[in-house]
Amino acid sequence: MSYFDVASTAPLHPVARQALTAALDEGWADPARLYRSGRQARMLLDAARETVAEVLGARADEIAFTASGTQAVQLGMLGALKGNRRRGGHLVHSAVEHSSVLHVAEQHEAAGGEVSVVPVDRLGRVKPTRFAERFGDGTALAVLQTANHEVGTVQPVAEVADLCGSVGIPLLVDAAQSAGRLPVPGGWSLLTASAHKWGGPAGVGVLAVRKGVRYASPLPADERERGRVPGYVNVPAIVAAAASLRAVRAEAEQENARLHALVERIRATVPQLVPEVEVVGDPVHRLPHLVTFSCLYVDGEVLLGELDRAGFAVSSGSSCTSSTLTPSHVLAAMGVLTEGNVRVSLPYGTDEADVTRFLTVLPELVAGVRAPLGLDLRAPAAAEPAAPDEVPALVVDALGKRCPLPVIELARRIGEVAPGGTVAVLADDEAARLDIPAWCGMREQEYLGEAPAAAYGHDRGTAYLVRRVS
Amino acid sequence: MSYFDVASTAPLHPVARQALTAALDEGWADPARLYRSGRQARMLLDAARETVAEVLGARADEIAFTASGTQAVQLGMLGALKGNRRRGGHLVHSAVEHSSVLHVAEQHEAAGGEVSVVPVDRLGRVKPTRFAERFGDGTALAVLQTANHEVGTVQPVAEVADLCGSVGIPLLVDAAQSAGRLPVPGGWSLLTASAHKWGGPAGVGVLAVRKGVRYASPLPADERERGRVPGYVNVPAIVAAAASLRAVRAEAEQENARLHALVERIRATVPQLVPEVEVVGDPVHRLPHLVTFSCLYVDGEVLLGELDRAGFAVSSGSSCTSSTLTPSHVLAAMGVLTEGNVRVSLPYGTDEADVTRFLTVLPELVAGVRAPLGLDLRAPAAAEPAAPDEVPALVVDALGKRCPLPVIELARRIGEVAPGGTVAVLADDEAARLDIPAWCGMREQEYLGEAPAAAYGHDRGTAYLVRRVS
Repeated sequence: MSYFDVASTAPLHPVARQALTAALDEGWADPARLYRSGRQARMLLDAARETVAEVLGARADEIAFTASGTQAVQLGMLGALKGNRRRGGHLVHSAVEHSSVLHVAEQHEAAGGEVSVVPVDRLGRVKPTRFAERFGDGTALAVLQTANHEVGTVQPVAEVADLCGSVGIPLLVDAAQSAGRLPVPGGWSLLTASAHKWGGPAGVGVLAVRKGVRYASPLPADERERGRVPGYVNVPAIVAAAASLRAVRAEAEQENARLHALVERIRATVPQLVPEVEVVGDPVHRLPHLVTFSCLYVDGEVLLGELDRAGFAVSSGSSCTSSTLTPSHVLAAMGVLTEGNVRVSLPYGTDEADVTRFLTVLPELVAGVRAPLGLDLRAPAAAEPAAPDEVPALVVDALGKRCPLPVIELARRIGEVAPGGTVAVLADDEAARLDIPAWCGMREQEYLGEAPAAAYGHDRGTAYLVRRVS
Repeated sequence: MSYFDVASTAPLHPVARQALTAALDEGWADPARLYRSGRQARMLLDAARETVAEVLGARADEIAFTASGTQAVQLGMLGALKGNRRRGGHLVHSAVEHSSVLHVAEQHEAAGGEVSVVPVDRLGRVKPTRFAERFGDGTALAVLQTANHEVGTVQPVAEVADLCGSVGIPLLVDAAQSAGRLPVPGGWSLLTASAHKWGGPAGVGVLAVRKGVRYASPLPADERERGRVPGYVNVPAIVAAAASLRAVRAEAEQENARLHALVERIRATVPQLVPEVEVVGDPVHRLPHLVTFSCLYVDGEVLLGELDRAGFAVSSGSSCTSSTLTPSHVLAAMGVLTEGNVRVSLPYGTDEADVTRFLTVLPELVAGVRAPLGLDLRAPAAAEPAAPDEVPALVVDALGKRCPLPVIELARRIGEVAPGGTVAVLADDEAARLDIPAWCGMREQEYLGEAPAAAYGHDRGTAYLVRRVS
């Protein structure tokens, strides 16, 4: 099995496993106790805190250990918003943050707070100036990830931190995808990370709060972790997390260069081997080990299943793979294709031969998924542009059909109208709103816009209007 | 080293260690993923949930795994209060609940909620009828522990559950100290527990919510654990927690009987070997493995240090061992002595020889701590009662002195007044409020009450008035 989903969780680093085993023997007692085994657990905890602080560029007394990256984000955001509420209730974050950030923002807004979402470009990157444009007198917190978890785009954190610093707005930096792999940009007020993403065990997140940053715990009082994280402190897992962070950081330079080259190969090769594919995310400002692409006319869940049977564990942002049946908010915010989406994220130590095998298998699998559709994938018919007509020449009813079926129907039937003619695709799957315009861009057809399907005699859904250009 | 502090945390059960090691190999992947290793993690998680549900008397879909017992209590209480807020904002809990319960109650009250605290008797037990007396139309939640974590008293949960059920008030039962060891009483609406108390790893708590009980998550949305606990699910630790719960439950009958006898021996022997000692907690309705006693004139921290050097790890509720320098709220609610407090809680497998050695060492250590005081510990002088006088014959200034010094000063100097005469002890350590009346009870002196020390020309502190009887 080739595990290419390190962005979900990394395999436990051998150093983490050793440290965990040792700490289960030496650091199992309650670090709050005064007897010998308790003091020993406390010493191990203190040492782990020093290590994590050093690698992340913080002071030990700024670090609190949480139970997960999500808990770190929740406590960090809620605590900073509460601590800074005299400034106001305005929160600014990018459109491509992790869902944990979005969910805190939703709760904040539902409770009467104000939220501004900063858009990203087609590569998934925020512009620092567009970020700063949202700042106002009442802005209490800004949130930005170091790098995106779905497409690997690295964000301009240092620039945004400068802009935040110049107006005194605290910035929470979510370093979940980069901590251990890349140096953490300075300038953060709060920093969050998750150990199982860097090869540590599950059950450990990090919340760092810079000295002097206002913070008020959103939870009931608790003495542990400087009053920031309630509950018994999981010393063995924290010790293992710290040990693996140090180990991963030491290997980073070499492994990053190696994985960067493997990803570059995937980025360059996939579009040559697979027709109608879009590689998404920033090709320059990117994580070394992560690449995402989307395949037209392909059901992401089906493709993941085929890849699993072929021995590859990858992830997807397609709506069909999500429990809510909505496509990834990251891909949506970028305005790129969401269907047939595959995220490849390579663990440290990935064998080049496995990547070669992946690149051999993928085109066959995608072709196999597409074969029953009988679509012409390579050569769109040449045609001269023609005058538009106001009434669609063809209405394609894809109501009730899930992604990627609406796009497949469109591709199948657009040849029925003359060049210059219009097709209305009726659909009620939310992914169609993203994927039909994305298909038009890829196939050089003209996307005209949408209208309620009611105009076509249906009580639900949307009509997506496409002019056949070629 | 004899570890007698299982009520703080239990040593990792061998079965937990085996299961953890196996699950780090087999269940390390993200259980939300669709590929093979993800499905495998999901299967292990499902199996663990079934096991925990079965042992705790719940349905698997009622169980959510948290990161700690404290998190389970916080989410359980906050979620039930939020889910039942149409009933009102009134919370009822006993005076001897775990601090996590008290802290949620404090936050609830600070946010405008109403809280009733049910007192306990001198054995630390609530009366079900006194519990029910607090219920009103606006009562949204009641909270009661299965057994107390400091003195081992088992609470009448089934009776309280019946009373709650008869008026439709949800009851949260905190089973942290008994889960795995004793059957969980039925009738709960919410149940909380902590795996590291039963020999599972740190990082796993349990929150069970009965079908049909109103619950609204107090935290931002998250898909995992039925929307009740945000963050990545720690499958290996959960698998280990479940395996050890089953193992501990299987051993319980035999070990409980054995530990019950060892504790009975400590309960009976300590007062014979150590002068001026009070064994606290219910002698009948008690946990099998836990016993607490307090030694007059002894600094708890000093005694713990001596026991540590002698190879015994125990805990204490004395104020000097607490980071806040306040005595245990449990001992305070019971109205028993808080100084020189020692909690002994025996792990499964405790060797009888270690208990014997403890009973040999303890009297010497206590005597050693007391020796420099030069107090007469055995035979209070016989004397006839006399009429009280209104003005204290002696004022003992113990202002600025920490526990147990005010009581030591009192014991040292009460002989200076004639029988029937009054001593005023001036003190500003909070523990004196509990320990001076407790000393009077043990020494058969009469405690008259307290007054501001201002009456004695001091701008701070309290005067505790004691009549010399004997």
